[in-house]
Amino acid sequence: MSNLKNDLLLRALRGEAVERPPVWMMRQAGRYLPDYIKLRNQYDFFTRVQTPELASAITLQPVDQVGVDAAIIFSDILVIPQAMGMTVLMEEGKGPLLPDVIKTKADIDNLVTDGVEHTLKYVMDALSLTKQELNGRVPLIGFAGAPWTLLCYMVEGKGSKSFDKAKQFCFTQPELAHSLLQKITDMTITYLKAQIKAGADTVQVFDSWSGMLSPADFNNFARPYLIQIADAVSEDAPVILFPKGSWYALEGLSNSSAAGLGIDWTVTPQLARKLTGGNITLQGNFDPSRLLAPISEIKKSVKEMIDGFGTQRYIANLGHGILPNVPVDHARAFVDAVKEYSMTTAQQIA
Amino acid sequence: MSNLKNDLLLRALRGEAVERPPVWMMRQAGRYLPDYIKLRNQYDFFTRVQTPELASAITLQPVDQVGVDAAIIFSDILVIPQAMGMTVLMEEGKGPLLPDVIKTKADIDNLVTDGVEHTLKYVMDALSLTKQELNGRVPLIGFAGAPWTLLCYMVEGKGSKSFDKAKQFCFTQPELAHSLLQKITDMTITYLKAQIKAGADTVQVFDSWSGMLSPADFNNFARPYLIQIADAVSEDAPVILFPKGSWYALEGLSNSSAAGLGIDWTVTPQLARKLTGGNITLQGNFDPSRLLAPISEIKKSVKEMIDGFGTQRYIANLGHGILPNVPVDHARAFVDAVKEYSMTTAQQIA
Repeated sequence: MSNLKNDLLLRALRGEAVERPPVWMMRQAGRYLPDYIKLRNQYDFFTRVQTPELASAITLQPVDQVGVDAAIIFSDILVIPQAMGMTVLMEEGKGPLLPDVIKTKADIDNLVTDGVEHTLKYVMDALSLTKQELNGRVPLIGFAGAPWTLLCYMVEGKGSKSFDKAKQFCFTQPELAHSLLQKITDMTITYLKAQIKAGADTVQVFDSWSGMLSPADFNNFARPYLIQIADAVSEDAPVILFPKGSWYALEGLSNSSAAGLGIDWTVTPQLARKLTGGNITLQGNFDPSRLLAPISEIKKSVKEMIDGFGTQRYIANLGHGILPNVPVDHARAFVDAVKEYSMTTAQQIA
Repeated sequence: MSNLKNDLLLRALRGEAVERPPVWMMRQAGRYLPDYIKLRNQYDFFTRVQTPELASAITLQPVDQVGVDAAIIFSDILVIPQAMGMTVLMEEGKGPLLPDVIKTKADIDNLVTDGVEHTLKYVMDALSLTKQELNGRVPLIGFAGAPWTLLCYMVEGKGSKSFDKAKQFCFTQPELAHSLLQKITDMTITYLKAQIKAGADTVQVFDSWSGMLSPADFNNFARPYLIQIADAVSEDAPVILFPKGSWYALEGLSNSSAAGLGIDWTVTPQLARKLTGGNITLQGNFDPSRLLAPISEIKKSVKEMIDGFGTQRYIANLGHGILPNVPVDHARAFVDAVKEYSMTTAQQIA
């Protein structure tokens, strides 16, 4: 962390002054990049994830080709269910499938809860290798899925429009649900600390399905575990929480130990600032579909977004992962627009 | 409308005093009911929709079997794209498919924009027949899809996690998008007025995908058309708008000519009341997955929901359509819990 040539991301997370906002894109290492698609045609998903040289090469592609201010390690949130002993299948373009879902106390008792530093050593190796290859160019981000989102997959077994099996499990067997969430949480804390030790400068926790929950259920099944992770991992490095769709949670989470909060595009920058009271660095929130607009429109919308958030305590990003059908020059236009944002016209928050 | 034995729904929409809140469930006529499944096994989807006797029988099932305070006509939002000349295929359990999507100005010019009273006469016939069969037991609700949501299907051609093709169309060809939205709006206004003439006591406009839009894009591509519909149709009967996922739109829409606003379960009843300032009747917002909880839990949650909304200017409902895997006795427990809600403990809004 000490010898970074570009430490905009870390300064923004620490609330320090920056010349301009840092910019990166969720899922920036992946399916919209032609060089990624070449590797995808040669190696299956988990080979790419589990081979440090491949994961590292994929991680570096958007740094080299799109010019983002941070690298995020190429991996998947479902490596934790795998490390806990579950089978996870990934069919290209079809999403994940977990054939043996969690149903009973015995299923939870049977989950592996230790040794994640060893079972997921390939992630740590990919981080160390990437850190070395980056040679201080930009910070490196590690990540994990949030406990609620991982429970969704571990109980539902696949993606879903409503995750009603996962919710039914929580509503009918809340004690079991909480014991599962706690196990995932403990494993995730160890995992994220190991990622930081291996070279991650900061980590993001993706609660991709938290917006499926009512505010009361979020407070019951999601929030406490996000807080536990933020509290434990913040000792080692700044933590970014991204509770997608849970605009109602922003106010409460702004007072947590997290350094940053991810915002999706259903919240205006102005409201996000109002709800979080300037207490925390905000990250987001460009509609990923808007990268399909003409480049002139992208540049105009980026300017409006930064005008809304201000240049300080802010990380420019999308409001969700980049879509596979985004042209690379549109992704680059997004990044360039942030870099070109004139400080003279900027609304200063700090 | 004059001879209704149970007019709770209409009184709630008019802001008049009620003994208890009316209750109905979105998609109440459908796939969780064994008698519906029997008809589904005999007749394909559009046969059920287009045969007034079948549509009417399906509409009446939840009134007879679950005890709801309103009937909603069994139909589909995609009858409007059909009436405009598009092919709509419906594969059981797979969702809709529109093989010839809208791409160009010529595609929009070719859309049929008149004669909806004739092309969709089967809906009006189903309404008249149902009105007669109901014999004043409960009010009858008509409905249509909102222009933005119909554009999603007409441009994307099927369901989608992001509707990025539909958005790309709007972002790259906004003039075309607006001309399409206006054509859908004009057709929808005529259609809803015809439904009212045929017997609908009130109509609901479903903007199922409005929550995919940023607040700015909602104000551009969704809101103006909802307002046009509400303004035109409110002359004939009360209009309920349901912009699912668009919590940010509630405040603005509460000052429209709509009589009611649908609320999903990501908004607490208290916040929904605060945002809408008591200006409008609210409808919702039980998490459909929570109908999979034990019956005792359902009853407890219903009580909390009504405590939150208050009993006046309120229509108890789900926050989205009922799920196919909900046991009928759980649906009935939801309805019964509303009916049993004690006025003595009720928080009065009016």
